Amino acid sequence: MIDVTIPTALLRQYAQVRKWTETICRPLQKEDYVVQPVEDVSPPKWHLGHTTWFFETLVLKKFLPGYIEFDPLFNFVFNSYYESLGARVIRTDRGNLSRPTVDEIYTYRKYVDSAMELLLSQPLSEEAETLITLGCNHEQQHQELLWYDIKYILGNNPLFPPYNESPSPETPRSAPMHFIDMKAGVYEIGFAGEGFCYDNELGRHKVYLEPYAIADRPVTNGEFLAFIDAGGYKEFSYWHAEGWDWVKRNNIQSPMYWHFDDGRWMNYTLQGLVPVAPTETLSHISFYEAAAFAAWKGLRLPTEFEWEAAAGNFEWGQRWEWTESAYLPYPGFERVAGAVGEYNGKFMVNQKVLRGASEYTPEGHSRATYRNFFHPHLRWQLSGIRLAKTLKSSL
Amino acid sequence: MIDVTIPTALLRQYAQVRKWTETICRPLQKEDYVVQPVEDVSPPKWHLGHTTWFFETLVLKKFLPGYIEFDPLFNFVFNSYYESLGARVIRTDRGNLSRPTVDEIYTYRKYVDSAMELLLSQPLSEEAETLITLGCNHEQQHQELLWYDIKYILGNNPLFPPYNESPSPETPRSAPMHFIDMKAGVYEIGFAGEGFCYDNELGRHKVYLEPYAIADRPVTNGEFLAFIDAGGYKEFSYWHAEGWDWVKRNNIQSPMYWHFDDGRWMNYTLQGLVPVAPTETLSHISFYEAAAFAAWKGLRLPTEFEWEAAAGNFEWGQRWEWTESAYLPYPGFERVAGAVGEYNGKFMVNQKVLRGASEYTPEGHSRATYRNFFHPHLRWQLSGIRLAKTLKSSL
Amino acid sequence: MIDVTIPTALLRQYAQVRKWTETICRPLQKEDYVVQPVEDVSPPKWHLGHTTWFFETLVLKKFLPGYIEFDPLFNFVFNSYYESLGARVIRTDRGNLSRPTVDEIYTYRKYVDSAMELLLSQPLSEEAETLITLGCNHEQQHQELLWYDIKYILGNNPLFPPYNESPSPETPRSAPMHFIDMKAGVYEIGFAGEGFCYDNELGRHKVYLEPYAIADRPVTNGEFLAFIDAGGYKEFSYWHAEGWDWVKRNNIQSPMYWHFDDGRWMNYTLQGLVPVAPTETLSHISFYEAAAFAAWKGLRLPTEFEWEAAAGNFEWGQRWEWTESAYLPYPGFERVAGAVGEYNGKFMVNQKVLRGASEYTPEGHSRATYRNFFHPHLRWQLSGIRLAKTLKSSL
Amino acid sequence: MIDVTIPTALLRQYAQVRKWTETICRPLQKEDYVVQPVEDVSPPKWHLGHTTWFFETLVLKKFLPGYIEFDPLFNFVFNSYYESLGARVIRTDRGNLSRPTVDEIYTYRKYVDSAMELLLSQPLSEEAETLITLGCNHEQQHQELLWYDIKYILGNNPLFPPYNESPSPETPRSAPMHFIDMKAGVYEIGFAGEGFCYDNELGRHKVYLEPYAIADRPVTNGEFLAFIDAGGYKEFSYWHAEGWDWVKRNNIQSPMYWHFDDGRWMNYTLQGLVPVAPTETLSHISFYEAAAFAAWKGLRLPTEFEWEAAAGNFEWGQRWEWTESAYLPYPGFERVAGAVGEYNGKFMVNQKVLRGASEYTPEGHSRATYRNFFHPHLRWQLSGIRLAKTLKSSL
Repeated sequence: MIDVTIPTALLRQYAQVRKWTETICRPLQKEDYVVQPVEDVSPPKWHLGHTTWFFETLVLKKFLPGYIEFDPLFNFVFNSYYESLGARVIRTDRGNLSRPTVDEIYTYRKYVDSAMELLLSQPLSEEAETLITLGCNHEQQHQELLWYDIKYILGNNPLFPPYNESPSPETPRSAPMHFIDMKAGVYEIGFAGEGFCYDNELGRHKVYLEPYAIADRPVTNGEFLAFIDAGGYKEFSYWHAEGWDWVKRNNIQSPMYWHFDDGRWMNYTLQGLVPVAPTETLSHISFYEAAAFAAWKGLRLPTEFEWEAAAGNFEWGQRWEWTESAYLPYPGFERVAGAVGEYNGKFMVNQKVLRGASEYTPEGHSRATYRNFFHPHLRWQLSGIRLAKTLKSSL
Repeated sequence: MIDVTIPTALLRQYAQVRKWTETICRPLQKEDYVVQPVEDVSPPKWHLGHTTWFFETLVLKKFLPGYIEFDPLFNFVFNSYYESLGARVIRTDRGNLSRPTVDEIYTYRKYVDSAMELLLSQPLSEEAETLITLGCNHEQQHQELLWYDIKYILGNNPLFPPYNESPSPETPRSAPMHFIDMKAGVYEIGFAGEGFCYDNELGRHKVYLEPYAIADRPVTNGEFLAFIDAGGYKEFSYWHAEGWDWVKRNNIQSPMYWHFDDGRWMNYTLQGLVPVAPTETLSHISFYEAAAFAAWKGLRLPTEFEWEAAAGNFEWGQRWEWTESAYLPYPGFERVAGAVGEYNGKFMVNQKVLRGASEYTPEGHSRATYRNFFHPHLRWQLSGIRLAKTLKSSL
Repeated sequence: MIDVTIPTALLRQYAQVRKWTETICRPLQKEDYVVQPVEDVSPPKWHLGHTTWFFETLVLKKFLPGYIEFDPLFNFVFNSYYESLGARVIRTDRGNLSRPTVDEIYTYRKYVDSAMELLLSQPLSEEAETLITLGCNHEQQHQELLWYDIKYILGNNPLFPPYNESPSPETPRSAPMHFIDMKAGVYEIGFAGEGFCYDNELGRHKVYLEPYAIADRPVTNGEFLAFIDAGGYKEFSYWHAEGWDWVKRNNIQSPMYWHFDDGRWMNYTLQGLVPVAPTETLSHISFYEAAAFAAWKGLRLPTEFEWEAAAGNFEWGQRWEWTESAYLPYPGFERVAGAVGEYNGKFMVNQKVLRGASEYTPEGHSRATYRNFFHPHLRWQLSGIRLAKTLKSSL
Repeated sequence: MIDVTIPTALLRQYAQVRKWTETICRPLQKEDYVVQPVEDVSPPKWHLGHTTWFFETLVLKKFLPGYIEFDPLFNFVFNSYYESLGARVIRTDRGNLSRPTVDEIYTYRKYVDSAMELLLSQPLSEEAETLITLGCNHEQQHQELLWYDIKYILGNNPLFPPYNESPSPETPRSAPMHFIDMKAGVYEIGFAGEGFCYDNELGRHKVYLEPYAIADRPVTNGEFLAFIDAGGYKEFSYWHAEGWDWVKRNNIQSPMYWHFDDGRWMNYTLQGLVPVAPTETLSHISFYEAAAFAAWKGLRLPTEFEWEAAAGNFEWGQRWEWTESAYLPYPGFERVAGAVGEYNGKFMVNQKVLRGASEYTPEGHSRATYRNFFHPHLRWQLSGIRLAKTLKSSL
């Protein structure tokens, strides 16, 4: 049968993904695995358990005959938001749970991995393969979140402990920003071709774009410093009303992780507190800050369609780039039945699309059609800015 | 000179608009003018003062030589959200102000009206005319809000006092719902032509629409009752995650103003509490409820572009119809400098577009290109549902 | 029969009390009757209705045969906190009710007054007489609250409207403060004798007081200004921990109604904004401020027992004077059964006792044994400070 | 010199106290040291660090010449509430700090212990001795809090992990409750004699007590079950108004740690979930529940003075017993200057006194004059109920 083969490649992918999650956590102290300083950050040990629970619940229970659940209470502890999969720890309580311990969760991982390897050494139905592939991609998403959360946990500790000592991976940017002109016309948007993609990328469809231009590189720290120095955080006219409220209520004066100390701007990085590097790509800004910066420049952010249509013309992948687009369904988008149907569709309101990828994105997990999304005030993720402008329209 | 003429038509429009505001308020008791039961509702006396302040601040102070401000403190009391026009009473405090009294505000209106009539009896610059026209349209928007707020104030009072005794203006709907097929292709969107429009409608531009169908009439109370009876408020899978949270946190079980009493659904209308009429057009639902209802039907809401492209093919104007579209700038949208620039652009995040008009919309204040917008959880406005569906795409 | 007589004196008292309530409200605009700027302030029209409801519910329904309730919904609207008397408008919603109107409430008062006069023209049981007397005292308490609430409503309006034009009733204080020495020993505390008192004053009992001294007059504005000038609001060591939190969270820098304007302290009074008069008795301070002021002086507040034991030796009655005592039951205190039992006992936790009376206290409503009580952070009531100190103990 | 001796006994006390803290923590997993599920609970590692910081800051820095601070940032991390000792981590953030790690804090303890042993092997001034004694008593208070916090951390985890396997230490109570009559008269209250006591026990003074009776033993689980079964949590008339609000807002239906499961009441104990034992002493109830239970019985709680005057006549020490008394200063109470003066006095408002001791109270840390205090809604501490009643007064 064509759809039941021994999934050697999938087993290899599974093993690599699972190992990388643990590699990310290796430099952590046990205490670092436990805390949840704000609601959006999850304890690393929760990520370790949740990604494992995903395979146990959606794959092993269904496809591995005789599989015995590791611990029935883990369903309550490690369910994230799946209403169809039962009651769960409320999100703000994740950091209140000292148990299961880190060691117990690593044991849980081993237990599930053994069962998965057993399953993956046999011929597999297409449905099972699809769900395992989804589980790998799901874990890759959590790998990126792990980086964000680890950085937040360490970077908001008064001792500012470094995650490791390795040098910054970035090459300085010194070239001026140029704009790439894009012609008006009908473009095709959305995933087409082989391989994995999320349901929110599907439904390839046409959009008409008015003529525009888009920057060939993202904004740097130095360029954003000019905005701060020009009083950008103090002038309401650059801001959305809700952005201005956010600035005032939270007393925002710089990107996240920047501290003005002894007359200069310092930046918490995974290597500890270092001076802000002007030639480094800007990161950790909210949509509100991205939009205000663009307004100050007399420019704007691209829509996600403009971004995708032009993505072949510039390099991308250091930062998730905020777009002007709201996170909405493509025409013809449909929710799958069951728990997997809760993956994307139910979040399609009040969020903004980010395009591209970041340094934290796992290898093989980026596509030009990938639609990332966050609420507009969030900035613990590795976000940045690419500028755009409208060209003279034909109408 | 062509742009300095005696603006007779504008004077007539001004007088009509100003009078209609007071007509709406005529059945109120003085106490009804004062209260603010929730943040989104403003006291009617605040609307009376604020619309007047708009003319005083943006027109008279600038264009009527020798004009003397009625009371300098009124700027603080009646500024709504204009950062560029100084400090203001915080929104939640509007209902805490017993002074200025209703009589004083009517006096303020008379004072400003006299000055405006003086100004409008003289040749006027185009800039002044534009601002006065904006002021009239601004007051018309507040007339619609007045209806919402009055209904909320009376309809949330335990005595359920009627606003008046006039019979319901609606004709019953009995015809079944039909869908109008729309072809794929490039459509032009946005205001074109003569007359007033808001800046958010400008920048007429092309969009490509995949093939779709749109209902020829809005949803009725009876159709929504079927959703309630089918347990629609209790089944998470129809809802956005944020919508589901909203339902549970607020224990939502029906549209606003519906009360289940003695075995039947009652509805607060401006004529008091009456049984829910199944053949009446549904109203007072949030975007979340609109989207959940559509999901339960296996359908969806139209985008604002789909709505506008098809608007010539159906009747509209009883309810503001929620669309799937987020409220975003059109390509080439630009904020005007100064206070008027705060009118629309700064709200273009986290809100949903509603299209059409409602029974409360003042005459002459509706257009097929009009973009109304509210946060997705709000429903004290006269909102309703028009259904849509995607047809088989050509791709 | 000795306990059934025609209660001429009670009728006279009833009429006087009812009239005085309306006299207090006479200078108000209708709008002033409606608003509730903070939870602790009730709209004047609510006081008018609630005091009337008290007579209707606890007296007329029980003792006047054939009495017909004015409006059954008023029980819901005007019940304050009596759990045993049914559901009620939640406290924070009082200011959201435009109906019943002020005129309707005055009509309600007339209706109840007529019925009460009928009842009071007949022989009356002792139980009825007791409840009517309680109703009169209850209304007198609300008269004092009416003053507080009216002052708050007008004094927190940006227009600072005066209540009336009558000159300040106070005579300046210029005499230095002296302390009255009180001997150690057993004193008797609590109400004894004829006439009305509240249940919380009953259970006359002995207390032993160590030797102490108590000031012969309350603190003045001038004396408190010295505390401000000495940085009293900025030095935590004078404050209770919860008081210090309250100061910082609310940015407290002076007594309520004081505004630092153009280099001098202004004070909102019922006659409008006037400069702070240093020789006037201090008012509108919280317990926290009273205790901090005393600590700054190296002194303390008296207990309520010390106050009562010494009350014959000084003048009192301009301000309610904070004491160190918590509001607790006297030995042998017992709650009466039914609604009247909810009058005092259920509030005996987390509040502080104030002794004395104020300029706003109605004639005939003060006693040396009277126990007023408020939460320690409140200061819209007419509160002040009397200082005390411990003398060398005999132990 | 009489006040400078080698403090051998103090060294022994110091060593014992320090060791006991670590013994309590021995069964913990590292993860248990880190979390803070509610504001009132501190992470165990914080207690370990804070008690150490107390000796470092108040003793070593002042009295050990040449002492080098372990880490200057620890002052920020481990200061609890001392305003005079500088900025500090806000209380709700204690559970957000993964660093310093548990191992680092144990190292910190060793470092400070070595320095303290050095100091304690030399002649010591009386001031130093007093502060070290205070530090030991301070750490003993935190030992009791450690028990509360550990129990809360484990008992609110969905896995209900036991702390250890040792059997419950309690002997069942089967004897009926008797009341001990106490005569009216003047009693002396407060600490007298040798040895350590807190400043809030000082100022021994006379109080007059009316005749009363007090129970010879605390209330049992079985007696409290009768209150639950009689609907005690549903009948407002037993409750203070603020207690009733607390019950409704938090949906309280039983003491803390009780769960109604499969038709019977279970109780989380340090040995895990076990059925509620009716003959065990009741624990983990708030003041509101204690007062409501007493009201249901037609009785009341004793005052702290009644408790102390009678304490020689009954056994106490299993539970901290709520009294009716508010936590107030004794006559003549004075705050010490400096940080130590923040120990007790600034908390003397809005709290209730508990008398006695509990199974968790360290040996040598209890006295009949000891004044424990908590806010009336708290119940994670080991609290219980002793009943009292007023006898016929002589007045």
